[in-house]
Amino acid sequence: MREAYHDQLDSIFDDLGGICRRVQVAVGLATQALMTGDSALAERVISEDIEIDRARERVEESGFSLLSLQQPVAGDLRTIVAALRMVSELERMGDLSVHVAKVARLRVPDIAVPDDVRPTIEQMATVAEDMVSRVCDVIISRDVEAAIALGKDDEEMDGLRRRSFSELLSDDWSHGVEAAVDIALLGRYYERIADHAVSIANRVIFVVTGHNPAALAEQ
Amino acid sequence: MREAYHDQLDSIFDDLGGICRRVQVAVGLATQALMTGDSALAERVISEDIEIDRARERVEESGFSLLSLQQPVAGDLRTIVAALRMVSELERMGDLSVHVAKVARLRVPDIAVPDDVRPTIEQMATVAEDMVSRVCDVIISRDVEAAIALGKDDEEMDGLRRRSFSELLSDDWSHGVEAAVDIALLGRYYERIADHAVSIANRVIFVVTGHNPAALAEQ
Repeated sequence: MREAYHDQLDSIFDDLGGICRRVQVAVGLATQALMTGDSALAERVISEDIEIDRARERVEESGFSLLSLQQPVAGDLRTIVAALRMVSELERMGDLSVHVAKVARLRVPDIAVPDDVRPTIEQMATVAEDMVSRVCDVIISRDVEAAIALGKDDEEMDGLRRRSFSELLSDDWSHGVEAAVDIALLGRYYERIADHAVSIANRVIFVVTGHNPAALAEQ
Repeated sequence: MREAYHDQLDSIFDDLGGICRRVQVAVGLATQALMTGDSALAERVISEDIEIDRARERVEESGFSLLSLQQPVAGDLRTIVAALRMVSELERMGDLSVHVAKVARLRVPDIAVPDDVRPTIEQMATVAEDMVSRVCDVIISRDVEAAIALGKDDEEMDGLRRRSFSELLSDDWSHGVEAAVDIALLGRYYERIADHAVSIANRVIFVVTGHNPAALAEQ
Protein backbone atom coordinates (compact mmCIF):
# COMPACT_ATOMS: atom_id res chain seq x y z
CA MET A 1 0.00 0.00 0.00
CA ARG A 2 2.72 2.47 1.06
CA GLU A 3 4.71 1.30 -1.96
CA ALA A 4 1.91 2.06 -4.44
CA TYR A 5 1.44 5.37 -2.71
CA HIS A 6 5.03 6.43 -3.23
CA ASP A 7 4.87 5.28 -6.84
CA GLN A 8 1.88 7.57 -7.27
CA LEU A 9 3.74 10.45 -5.63
CA ASP A 10 6.73 9.89 -7.94
CA SER A 11 4.39 9.78 -10.87
CA ILE A 12 3.05 13.23 -9.95
CA PHE A 13 6.59 14.60 -10.08
CA ASP A 14 7.14 12.91 -13.45
CA ASP A 15 3.96 14.60 -14.67
CA LEU A 16 5.19 17.95 -13.34
CA GLY A 17 8.46 17.39 -15.21
CA GLY A 18 6.50 16.67 -18.39
CA ILE A 19 4.39 19.81 -18.02
CA CYS A 20 7.55 21.78 -17.38
CA ARG A 21 9.02 20.54 -20.69
CA ARG A 22 5.86 21.69 -22.47
CA VAL A 23 6.28 25.10 -20.87
CA GLN A 24 9.90 25.19 -21.97
CA VAL A 25 8.82 24.48 -25.56
CA ALA A 26 6.14 27.19 -25.31
CA VAL A 27 8.67 29.77 -24.08
CA GLY A 28 11.07 28.83 -26.89
CA LEU A 29 8.45 28.91 -29.66
CA ALA A 30 6.89 32.14 -28.39
CA THR A 31 10.32 33.76 -28.47
CA GLN A 32 10.96 32.48 -31.97
CA ALA A 33 7.56 33.81 -33.10
CA LEU A 34 8.43 37.14 -31.49
CA MET A 35 11.84 37.46 -33.07
CA THR A 36 10.76 36.41 -36.56
CA GLY A 37 7.18 37.76 -36.68
CA ASP A 38 5.93 34.25 -37.46
CA SER A 39 2.18 34.31 -36.91
CA ALA A 40 1.67 30.54 -37.42
CA LEU A 41 4.14 29.83 -34.65
CA ALA A 42 2.45 32.39 -32.38
CA GLU A 43 -0.92 30.74 -33.07
CA ARG A 44 0.53 27.37 -32.21
CA VAL A 45 1.75 28.55 -28.80
CA ILE A 46 -1.65 30.13 -28.11
CA SER A 47 -3.70 27.09 -29.16
CA GLU A 48 -1.46 24.48 -27.51
CA ASP A 49 -1.73 26.16 -24.11
CA ILE A 50 -4.95 24.22 -23.51
CA GLU A 51 -2.84 21.06 -23.28
CA ILE A 52 -0.86 22.54 -20.40
CA ASP A 53 -4.15 23.47 -18.72
CA ARG A 54 -5.46 19.91 -19.15
CA ALA A 55 -2.26 18.38 -17.84
CA ARG A 56 -2.57 20.66 -14.80
CA GLU A 57 -6.09 19.36 -14.17
CA ARG A 58 -4.84 15.77 -14.28
CA VAL A 59 -2.09 16.51 -11.75
CA GLU A 60 -4.63 18.23 -9.50
CA GLU A 61 -6.91 15.20 -9.63
CA SER A 62 -4.01 12.88 -8.75
CA GLY A 63 -2.93 15.15 -5.91
CA PHE A 64 -6.43 15.30 -4.45
CA SER A 65 -6.87 11.57 -4.82
CA LEU A 66 -3.61 10.95 -2.94
CA LEU A 67 -4.61 13.41 -0.24
CA SER A 68 -8.05 11.94 0.29
CA LEU A 69 -7.42 8.23 -0.16
CA GLN A 70 -4.05 7.84 1.48
CA GLN A 71 -4.21 10.28 4.38
CA PRO A 72 -0.53 11.07 4.09
CA VAL A 73 1.66 11.99 7.04
CA ALA A 74 3.36 15.36 7.48
CA GLY A 75 6.28 15.10 5.04
CA ASP A 76 4.28 13.54 2.22
CA LEU A 77 1.47 15.94 2.85
CA ARG A 78 3.75 18.92 2.32
CA THR A 79 5.10 17.27 -0.82
CA ILE A 80 1.64 16.87 -2.33
CA VAL A 81 0.58 20.40 -1.42
CA ALA A 82 3.86 21.68 -2.91
CA ALA A 83 3.15 19.72 -6.10
CA LEU A 84 -0.29 21.33 -6.34
CA ARG A 85 1.30 24.73 -6.06
CA MET A 86 4.04 23.95 -8.53
CA VAL A 87 1.52 22.89 -11.14
CA SER A 88 -0.33 26.21 -10.73
CA GLU A 89 2.92 28.06 -11.33
CA LEU A 90 3.76 25.96 -14.38
CA GLU A 91 0.35 26.72 -15.83
CA ARG A 92 0.93 30.41 -15.21
CA MET A 93 4.29 30.23 -17.01
CA GLY A 94 2.41 28.73 -19.95
CA ASP A 95 0.01 31.69 -19.84
CA LEU A 96 2.94 34.11 -19.85
CA SER A 97 4.33 32.39 -22.97
CA VAL A 98 0.92 32.95 -24.54
CA HIS A 99 1.21 36.65 -23.67
CA VAL A 100 4.58 36.79 -25.47
CA ALA A 101 3.05 35.01 -28.47
CA LYS A 102 0.15 37.47 -28.51
CA VAL A 103 2.51 40.46 -28.64
CA ALA A 104 4.25 38.75 -31.60
CA ARG A 105 0.91 38.11 -33.36
CA LEU A 106 -0.33 41.65 -32.79
CA ARG A 107 2.61 43.13 -34.74
CA VAL A 108 2.69 40.71 -37.70
CA PRO A 109 3.88 41.34 -40.45
CA ASP A 110 6.19 43.58 -38.43
CA ILE A 111 8.45 42.40 -35.64
CA ALA A 112 7.64 43.80 -32.19
CA VAL A 113 11.28 44.04 -31.10
CA PRO A 114 13.33 46.81 -32.77
CA ASP A 115 16.81 45.78 -33.89
CA ASP A 116 18.71 47.76 -31.28
CA VAL A 117 16.98 46.19 -28.26
CA ARG A 118 17.01 42.76 -29.86
CA PRO A 119 20.17 41.61 -28.03
CA THR A 120 18.68 42.49 -24.63
CA ILE A 121 15.32 40.84 -25.29
CA GLU A 122 16.99 37.79 -26.84
CA GLN A 123 19.15 37.47 -23.75
CA MET A 124 16.15 37.80 -21.44
CA ALA A 125 14.39 35.09 -23.45
CA THR A 126 17.49 32.88 -23.32
CA VAL A 127 17.87 33.31 -19.56
CA ALA A 128 14.15 32.61 -19.03
CA GLU A 129 14.16 29.51 -21.22
CA ASP A 130 17.36 28.25 -19.61
CA MET A 131 15.85 28.73 -16.13
CA VAL A 132 12.75 26.82 -17.21
CA SER A 133 14.91 24.02 -18.60
CA ARG A 134 16.90 23.81 -15.39
CA VAL A 135 13.83 23.87 -13.17
CA CYS A 136 12.45 20.92 -15.18
CA ASP A 137 15.65 19.03 -14.30
CA VAL A 138 15.31 20.09 -10.65
CA ILE A 139 11.72 18.80 -10.52
CA ILE A 140 12.85 15.38 -11.75
CA SER A 141 16.18 15.11 -9.88
CA ARG A 142 15.15 17.02 -6.72
CA ASP A 143 18.74 18.23 -6.69
CA VAL A 144 18.89 20.90 -3.97
CA GLU A 145 22.23 22.35 -5.12
CA ALA A 146 20.88 22.89 -8.62
CA ALA A 147 17.73 24.44 -7.15
CA ILE A 148 19.78 26.88 -5.08
CA ALA A 149 21.90 27.81 -8.13
CA LEU A 150 18.74 28.75 -10.02
CA GLY A 151 18.00 31.56 -7.60
CA LYS A 152 21.23 33.26 -8.61
CA ASP A 153 20.23 33.48 -12.27
CA ASP A 154 17.37 35.64 -11.22
CA GLU A 155 19.83 38.46 -10.61
CA GLU A 156 20.93 38.26 -14.23
CA MET A 157 17.29 38.67 -15.25
CA ASP A 158 16.94 41.73 -12.99
CA GLY A 159 20.02 43.26 -14.63
CA LEU A 160 18.63 42.62 -18.11
CA ARG A 161 15.31 44.15 -17.14
CA ARG A 162 17.10 47.30 -15.97
CA ARG A 163 19.13 47.39 -19.19
CA SER A 164 15.98 47.15 -21.32
CA PHE A 165 14.45 50.05 -19.39
CA SER A 166 17.52 52.22 -19.82
CA GLU A 167 17.49 51.44 -23.56
CA LEU A 168 13.91 52.37 -24.14
CA LEU A 169 14.07 55.44 -21.91
CA SER A 170 17.27 56.78 -23.49
CA ASP A 171 17.25 59.88 -25.68
CA ASP A 172 18.33 57.68 -28.58
CA TRP A 173 15.06 55.75 -28.54
CA SER A 174 13.55 56.28 -31.99
CA HIS A 175 10.89 53.57 -32.14
CA GLY A 176 8.04 55.41 -30.54
CA VAL A 177 5.67 54.62 -27.72
CA GLU A 178 4.12 51.43 -29.08
CA ALA A 179 7.43 49.58 -29.35
CA ALA A 180 8.48 50.85 -25.92
CA VAL A 181 5.29 49.55 -24.34
CA ASP A 182 5.74 46.19 -26.09
CA ILE A 183 9.31 45.93 -24.78
CA ALA A 184 8.31 46.89 -21.23
CA LEU A 185 5.54 44.28 -21.16
CA LEU A 186 7.68 41.59 -22.80
CA GLY A 187 10.34 42.26 -20.18
CA ARG A 188 7.72 41.83 -17.49
CA TYR A 189 6.53 38.51 -18.97
CA TYR A 190 10.02 37.03 -19.19
CA GLU A 191 10.82 38.28 -15.70
CA ARG A 192 7.70 36.61 -14.30
CA ILE A 193 8.57 33.33 -16.07
CA ALA A 194 11.97 33.50 -14.35
CA ASP A 195 10.36 34.37 -10.98
CA HIS A 196 8.13 31.31 -11.21
CA ALA A 197 11.11 29.09 -12.09
CA VAL A 198 12.88 30.31 -8.93
CA SER A 199 9.74 29.84 -6.87
CA ILE A 200 9.33 26.24 -8.11
CA ALA A 201 13.00 25.54 -7.36
CA ASN A 202 12.41 26.86 -3.84
CA ARG A 203 9.41 24.58 -3.44
CA VAL A 204 11.61 21.61 -4.41
CA ILE A 205 14.14 22.69 -1.76
CA PHE A 206 11.28 22.77 0.73
CA VAL A 207 10.05 19.32 -0.28
CA VAL A 208 13.52 17.79 0.04
CA THR A 209 14.84 19.58 3.13
CA GLY A 210 11.64 20.55 4.95
CA HIS A 211 12.93 24.12 5.13
CA ASN A 212 11.73 27.15 3.28
CA PRO A 213 14.63 28.94 1.62
CA ALA A 214 14.77 32.60 2.65
CA ALA A 215 14.19 33.56 -0.97
CA LEU A 216 10.73 32.02 -0.85
CA ALA A 217 9.73 34.08 2.15
CA GLU A 218 10.86 37.25 0.38
CA GLN A 219 8.82 36.77 -2.73
CA MET B 1 -13.45 16.79 17.89
CA ARG B 2 -15.29 17.43 14.58
CA GLU B 3 -16.71 20.58 16.15
CA ALA B 4 -13.28 21.99 17.01
CA TYR B 5 -12.15 21.04 13.55
CA HIS B 6 -14.86 23.07 11.84
CA ASP B 7 -14.16 25.98 14.15
CA GLN B 8 -10.56 25.85 12.99
CA LEU B 9 -11.64 25.73 9.35
CA ASP B 10 -13.92 28.73 9.86
CA SER B 11 -11.09 30.53 11.57
CA ILE B 12 -8.91 30.05 8.48
CA PHE B 13 -11.57 31.74 6.39
CA ASP B 14 -11.79 34.57 8.91
CA ASP B 15 -8.02 34.96 8.61
CA LEU B 16 -8.29 35.00 4.82
CA GLY B 17 -10.93 37.70 5.12
CA GLY B 18 -8.59 39.70 7.37
CA ILE B 19 -5.68 39.38 4.93
CA CYS B 20 -8.00 40.40 2.13
CA ARG B 21 -8.89 43.62 4.00
CA ARG B 22 -5.19 44.37 4.39
CA VAL B 23 -4.78 43.89 0.64
CA GLN B 24 -7.71 46.20 0.02
CA VAL B 25 -6.07 48.88 2.17
CA ALA B 26 -2.77 48.36 0.32
CA VAL B 27 -4.44 48.78 -3.08
CA GLY B 28 -6.20 51.93 -1.89
CA LEU B 29 -3.11 53.51 -0.34
CA ALA B 30 -0.89 52.60 -3.30
CA THR B 31 -3.38 54.28 -5.62
CA GLN B 32 -3.50 57.36 -3.41
CA ALA B 33 0.31 57.50 -3.36
CA LEU B 34 0.30 57.16 -7.14
CA MET B 35 -2.26 59.88 -7.76
CA THR B 36 -0.74 62.38 -5.33
CA GLY B 37 2.97 61.55 -5.59
CA ASP B 38 3.06 60.96 -1.84
CA SER B 39 6.31 59.14 -1.12
CA ALA B 40 5.58 58.52 2.59
CA LEU B 41 2.39 56.72 1.65
CA ALA B 42 4.20 54.70 -1.00
CA GLU B 43 6.84 53.71 1.59
CA ARG B 44 4.12 52.64 3.97
CA VAL B 45 2.56 50.27 1.42
CA ILE B 46 5.99 48.83 0.62
CA SER B 47 7.02 48.33 4.25
CA GLU B 48 3.66 47.00 5.47
CA ASP B 49 3.62 44.24 2.86
CA ILE B 50 5.67 42.10 5.24
CA GLU B 51 2.61 41.87 7.48
CA ILE B 52 0.59 40.32 4.65
CA ASP B 53 3.46 37.86 4.09
CA ARG B 54 3.49 36.91 7.78
CA ALA B 55 -0.28 36.51 7.89
CA ARG B 56 0.02 34.21 4.87
CA GLU B 57 2.55 32.08 6.73
CA ARG B 58 0.19 31.75 9.69
CA VAL B 59 -2.69 30.63 7.45
CA GLU B 60 -0.38 28.11 5.79
CA GLU B 61 0.62 26.70 9.15
CA SER B 62 -3.03 26.37 10.21
CA GLY B 63 -3.92 24.74 6.91
CA PHE B 64 -1.10 22.22 7.17
CA SER B 65 -1.92 21.50 10.77
CA LEU B 66 -5.57 20.81 9.87
CA LEU B 67 -4.51 18.59 6.98
CA SER B 68 -2.07 16.54 8.99
CA LEU B 69 -3.83 16.28 12.34
CA GLN B 70 -7.42 15.90 11.26
CA GLN B 71 -7.16 13.84 8.10
CA PRO B 72 -10.14 15.57 6.55
CA VAL B 73 -12.52 13.89 4.14
CA ALA B 74 -12.98 14.92 0.50
CA GLY B 75 -15.05 18.11 0.81
CA ASP B 76 -13.09 19.57 3.73
CA LEU B 77 -9.86 18.58 2.04
CA ARG B 78 -10.71 20.59 -1.05
CA THR B 79 -11.71 23.50 1.17
CA ILE B 80 -8.35 23.54 2.94
CA VAL B 81 -6.37 23.19 -0.28
CA ALA B 82 -8.49 25.99 -1.78
CA ALA B 83 -7.71 28.17 1.26
CA LEU B 84 -3.98 27.54 0.78
CA ARG B 85 -4.27 28.68 -2.82
CA MET B 86 -6.38 31.68 -1.95
CA VAL B 87 -3.81 32.89 0.54
CA SER B 88 -1.08 32.67 -2.13
CA GLU B 89 -3.19 34.79 -4.43
CA LEU B 90 -3.89 37.35 -1.71
CA GLU B 91 -0.18 37.64 -1.03
CA ARG B 92 0.44 38.16 -4.74
CA MET B 93 -2.19 40.93 -4.79
CA GLY B 94 -0.26 42.57 -1.95
CA ASP B 95 2.92 42.33 -4.06
CA LEU B 96 1.13 43.96 -6.99
CA SER B 97 0.09 46.85 -4.72
CA VAL B 98 3.76 47.20 -3.81
CA HIS B 99 4.58 47.41 -7.53
CA VAL B 100 2.07 50.26 -7.90
CA ALA B 101 3.60 52.01 -4.88
CA LYS B 102 7.09 51.62 -6.36
CA VAL B 103 6.04 53.30 -9.60
CA ALA B 104 4.66 56.16 -7.49
CA ARG B 105 7.89 56.40 -5.46
CA LEU B 106 10.10 56.33 -8.54
CA ARG B 107 8.48 59.46 -9.96
CA VAL B 108 8.32 61.58 -6.78
CA PRO B 109 8.17 64.64 -6.69
CA ASP B 110 6.39 64.18 -10.02
CA ILE B 111 3.21 62.17 -10.48
CA ALA B 112 3.53 59.12 -12.72
CA VAL B 113 0.06 59.50 -14.24
CA PRO B 114 -0.37 62.39 -16.70
CA ASP B 115 -3.59 64.39 -16.29
CA ASP B 116 -5.28 63.22 -19.46
CA VAL B 117 -5.05 59.48 -18.63
CA ARG B 118 -5.89 60.09 -15.00
CA PRO B 119 -9.60 59.28 -15.39
CA THR B 120 -8.83 55.89 -16.96
CA ILE B 121 -6.22 54.91 -14.38
CA GLU B 122 -8.40 56.16 -11.53
CA GLN B 123 -11.24 54.06 -12.84
CA MET B 124 -9.03 50.99 -13.16
CA ALA B 125 -7.89 51.51 -9.58
CA THR B 126 -11.49 51.97 -8.41
CA VAL B 127 -12.65 48.81 -10.19
CA ALA B 128 -9.69 46.84 -8.79
CA GLU B 129 -10.23 48.08 -5.24
CA ASP B 130 -13.97 47.45 -5.47
CA MET B 131 -13.35 43.91 -6.71
CA VAL B 132 -10.95 43.31 -3.82
CA SER B 133 -13.52 44.65 -1.36
CA ARG B 134 -16.22 42.41 -2.79
CA VAL B 135 -14.01 39.33 -2.81
CA CYS B 136 -13.30 39.96 0.90
CA ASP B 137 -17.07 39.84 1.48
CA VAL B 138 -17.33 36.68 -0.63
CA ILE B 139 -14.60 34.97 1.41
CA ILE B 140 -16.50 35.67 4.62
CA SER B 141 -20.06 35.11 3.39
CA ARG B 142 -19.29 32.34 0.86
CA ASP B 143 -22.10 33.86 -1.19
CA VAL B 144 -21.99 32.11 -4.57
CA GLU B 145 -24.19 34.68 -6.33
CA ALA B 146 -21.87 37.50 -5.29
CA ALA B 147 -18.88 35.43 -6.38
CA ILE B 148 -20.40 34.88 -9.83
CA ALA B 149 -21.19 38.59 -10.17
CA LEU B 150 -17.51 39.43 -9.56
CA GLY B 151 -16.48 37.64 -12.75
CA LYS B 152 -18.53 40.11 -14.76
CA ASP B 153 -16.61 43.12 -13.46
CA ASP B 154 -13.54 41.67 -15.02
CA GLU B 155 -14.93 42.66 -18.42
CA GLU B 156 -15.04 46.28 -17.27
CA MET B 157 -11.35 46.00 -16.37
CA ASP B 158 -10.55 44.58 -19.82
CA GLY B 159 -12.35 47.51 -21.42
CA LEU B 160 -10.42 50.02 -19.30
CA ARG B 161 -7.15 48.33 -20.16
CA ARG B 162 -7.95 48.66 -23.87
CA ARG B 163 -8.90 52.31 -23.37
CA SER B 164 -5.60 53.07 -21.62
CA PHE B 165 -3.71 51.49 -24.52
CA SER B 166 -5.60 53.49 -27.10
CA GLU B 167 -4.89 56.66 -25.11
CA LEU B 168 -1.18 56.13 -24.84
CA LEU B 169 -0.80 54.93 -28.42
CA SER B 170 -2.81 57.81 -29.90
CA ASP B 171 -1.14 60.56 -31.93
CA ASP B 172 -2.15 63.03 -29.22
CA TRP B 173 0.12 61.34 -26.66
CA SER B 174 2.54 64.04 -25.59
CA HIS B 175 4.02 62.59 -22.39
CA GLY B 176 6.82 60.57 -23.89
CA VAL B 177 7.96 57.01 -23.54
CA GLU B 178 8.57 56.92 -19.79
CA ALA B 179 5.01 57.88 -18.87
CA ALA B 180 3.63 55.46 -21.48
CA VAL B 181 5.64 52.59 -20.02
CA ASP B 182 4.49 53.52 -16.50
CA ILE B 183 0.86 53.53 -17.62
CA ALA B 184 1.19 50.22 -19.46
CA LEU B 185 2.73 48.53 -16.42
CA LEU B 186 0.29 50.12 -13.97
CA GLY B 187 -2.56 48.85 -16.16
CA ARG B 188 -1.03 45.39 -16.02
CA TYR B 189 -0.76 45.51 -12.20
CA TYR B 190 -4.38 46.58 -11.68
CA GLU B 191 -5.55 44.03 -14.23
CA ARG B 192 -3.68 41.25 -12.38
CA ILE B 193 -5.18 42.35 -9.04
CA ALA B 194 -8.63 42.07 -10.64
CA ASP B 195 -7.74 38.66 -12.17
CA HIS B 196 -6.77 37.33 -8.76
CA ALA B 197 -10.00 38.66 -7.21
CA VAL B 198 -11.99 36.72 -9.83
CA SER B 199 -9.86 33.63 -9.31
CA ILE B 200 -10.44 33.74 -5.54
CA ALA B 201 -14.18 34.22 -6.10
CA ASN B 202 -14.11 31.13 -8.34
CA ARG B 203 -12.32 29.15 -5.65
CA VAL B 204 -15.08 30.10 -3.19
CA ILE B 205 -17.67 28.86 -5.72
CA PHE B 206 -15.73 25.61 -5.90
CA VAL B 207 -15.58 25.27 -2.13
CA VAL B 208 -19.32 25.83 -1.73
CA THR B 209 -20.67 23.95 -4.75
CA GLY B 210 -17.93 21.40 -5.42
CA HIS B 211 -17.87 22.53 -9.05
CA ASN B 212 -15.23 24.50 -10.86
CA PRO B 213 -16.78 27.46 -12.64
CA ALA B 214 -15.87 27.45 -16.34
CA ALA B 215 -14.08 30.77 -15.84
CA LEU B 216 -11.56 29.08 -13.56
CA ALA B 217 -10.68 26.49 -16.20
CA GLU B 218 -10.10 29.25 -18.74
CA GLN B 219 -7.64 31.23 -16.68
